[in-house]
Amino acid sequence: MSKIAVIGAGSWGTALSLVLADNAHDVCLWSHSEEQVDELLQKRVNERYLPGVHIPENVSFHHDLKEALQETSAILLVVPTKAIRQVCRQISDVLDHKVTLIHGTKGIEPNTLKRVSEMIEEEMDDALYEEVVVLSGPSHAEEVGQRQPTTVTVSSKSMKEAEKAQDLFINENLRVYTSPDMIGVELGGSLKNIIALGAGISDGLGYGDNAKAALITRGLAEIARLGTSMGANPLTFIGLSGVGDLIVTCTSVHSRNWKAGNLLGKGNKLKDVLDQMGMIVEGVNTTKAAHQFAEQQHTDMPITNGIYQILFEDAAPRDIVDQLMTRGRRHEMEDLSNMLSNLYGN
Amino acid sequence: MSKIAVIGAGSWGTALSLVLADNAHDVCLWSHSEEQVDELLQKRVNERYLPGVHIPENVSFHHDLKEALQETSAILLVVPTKAIRQVCRQISDVLDHKVTLIHGTKGIEPNTLKRVSEMIEEEMDDALYEEVVVLSGPSHAEEVGQRQPTTVTVSSKSMKEAEKAQDLFINENLRVYTSPDMIGVELGGSLKNIIALGAGISDGLGYGDNAKAALITRGLAEIARLGTSMGANPLTFIGLSGVGDLIVTCTSVHSRNWKAGNLLGKGNKLKDVLDQMGMIVEGVNTTKAAHQFAEQQHTDMPITNGIYQILFEDAAPRDIVDQLMTRGRRHEMEDLSNMLSNLYGN
Repeated sequence: MSKIAVIGAGSWGTALSLVLADNAHDVCLWSHSEEQVDELLQKRVNERYLPGVHIPENVSFHHDLKEALQETSAILLVVPTKAIRQVCRQISDVLDHKVTLIHGTKGIEPNTLKRVSEMIEEEMDDALYEEVVVLSGPSHAEEVGQRQPTTVTVSSKSMKEAEKAQDLFINENLRVYTSPDMIGVELGGSLKNIIALGAGISDGLGYGDNAKAALITRGLAEIARLGTSMGANPLTFIGLSGVGDLIVTCTSVHSRNWKAGNLLGKGNKLKDVLDQMGMIVEGVNTTKAAHQFAEQQHTDMPITNGIYQILFEDAAPRDIVDQLMTRGRRHEMEDLSNMLSNLYGN
Repeated sequence: MSKIAVIGAGSWGTALSLVLADNAHDVCLWSHSEEQVDELLQKRVNERYLPGVHIPENVSFHHDLKEALQETSAILLVVPTKAIRQVCRQISDVLDHKVTLIHGTKGIEPNTLKRVSEMIEEEMDDALYEEVVVLSGPSHAEEVGQRQPTTVTVSSKSMKEAEKAQDLFINENLRVYTSPDMIGVELGGSLKNIIALGAGISDGLGYGDNAKAALITRGLAEIARLGTSMGANPLTFIGLSGVGDLIVTCTSVHSRNWKAGNLLGKGNKLKDVLDQMGMIVEGVNTTKAAHQFAEQQHTDMPITNGIYQILFEDAAPRDIVDQLMTRGRRHEMEDLSNMLSNLYGN
């Protein structure tokens, strides 16, 4: 059994701490908030982010990063995308040994358009890890906390590092698969949040399951096209970390990106929605990043652009969704042929 | 405007009659049940299959097939798979002119393993139509009846016939796309019902959205693999009539295959479930057909085989779903690589 640091005590960090604890590892769960650490120490429940789930004794709570990282063989980073760089610099400053470095953060950085593993590579001292591992897939934290059956994918430039991560997390409730396509696994988890915002908007407008299924299907083609032009293998988007995560995020009551979209569809403004949520909605910045990328590449991304207009240009959700539903295309295979051409370079 | 016969007054036949009526066509809606025709004439509502929706005056109701077919330029067949052959023979007997022939039935015939269009071709006089057209996609009849935004795909060996069908149905609520892959469009709509039974079973057992997303994702790979070995283009399974219909059927409260699975998951026996449903559950016979095909081809179809064991061999749903969740595979790309090999014949 190993000592493992989990950096970030949100829903997903807390849920994955429970998985590691179930696997008899010693878990050091770090939070940037001293107040949260005090509450965790007192209650052994993360009331705000994973209510109702007892955190067992082999999870310790830390606000001091150096203390949390002591003698750990692995670090799991689960902080919001916008905090990744700063946290990595802090870790670099205090970590004094080499670790297996895993992240479970789903986002893309606006302006730089970097994936989370690229941001980590830029900020962390090379000597402290072999290759970054990403963990992603259709996995609401609430259900992982309840030990419901769940599947995730791990990927890394080093298959050996990916398999180390697989061994740490796999158990009878959580099946962990490996994939060689790290870019695709990171992008699938990130880009699906754009479509989840759209699915929430459609539901918020009062449209039905038929409309949402159409939006998800076209969204899948769109993020696969975008992901492929960013270097992913398009087939990854048909796997657990692609369509699997897309489905769960677009159709489940647990999804915060769907919830934010739902509030937007009901006529709320972005600022009010984010205030009301009180949690990071990664899809908002991911939409900004994807929109920037599409503009640079002159790629046709109607859903992403539509969501961008709703989020940042005050467009009316109904106008955008109606436009998306009634576009001029008459042949369905156009999108799919594009994907195939991207794949085989025709 | 044309005169069009809709053969079959279930939920989908009634909903599509409304679409055609909205497009100002004269619709002759035929039912095999004289009692149902009487009720429709009296109430202009299909109380049993599409309650709460008024059927406009340009829809007439018929029990006499010859009368329903008189001077029609197109026929839409929407009867259960097991009734297709008999109805086609009856049409052949009384139809005296050539029509555009469209079907909206999602099933595969056990034992022969024929698709619906193949069954039609075997039973109908060649001189009565050019090529069969299939209409399929993520389209719950209830929402089409409410004029909610919906997308469907039409396909045929003759693109001209597919485009005729597209022109008949397309309007501001129903977007109709064409696809050249008729086999894929028919199989996507049929095989997805197997996975919908599985999704219902998983929900009925009390498993969560994470487990269902994993099942749907693997189900997509499985039906794409099976469909490809039956002659479909695997890319069709990533389109509206594939993953689109799969998502809507597995996650919507309207789906009768999901409902049947849900009752099975809660411990009911198949016979009781079918009695309770009182409607055709196409997925049951489709599972039988797909299972026969997989046995003949020695194809590995774990989900189909699992559902088959629950339906026909009295296997315990929990044992089957647990088996599916904990299979030995560790690398996710195995399934996807298979799909690609099938596609490119490596």
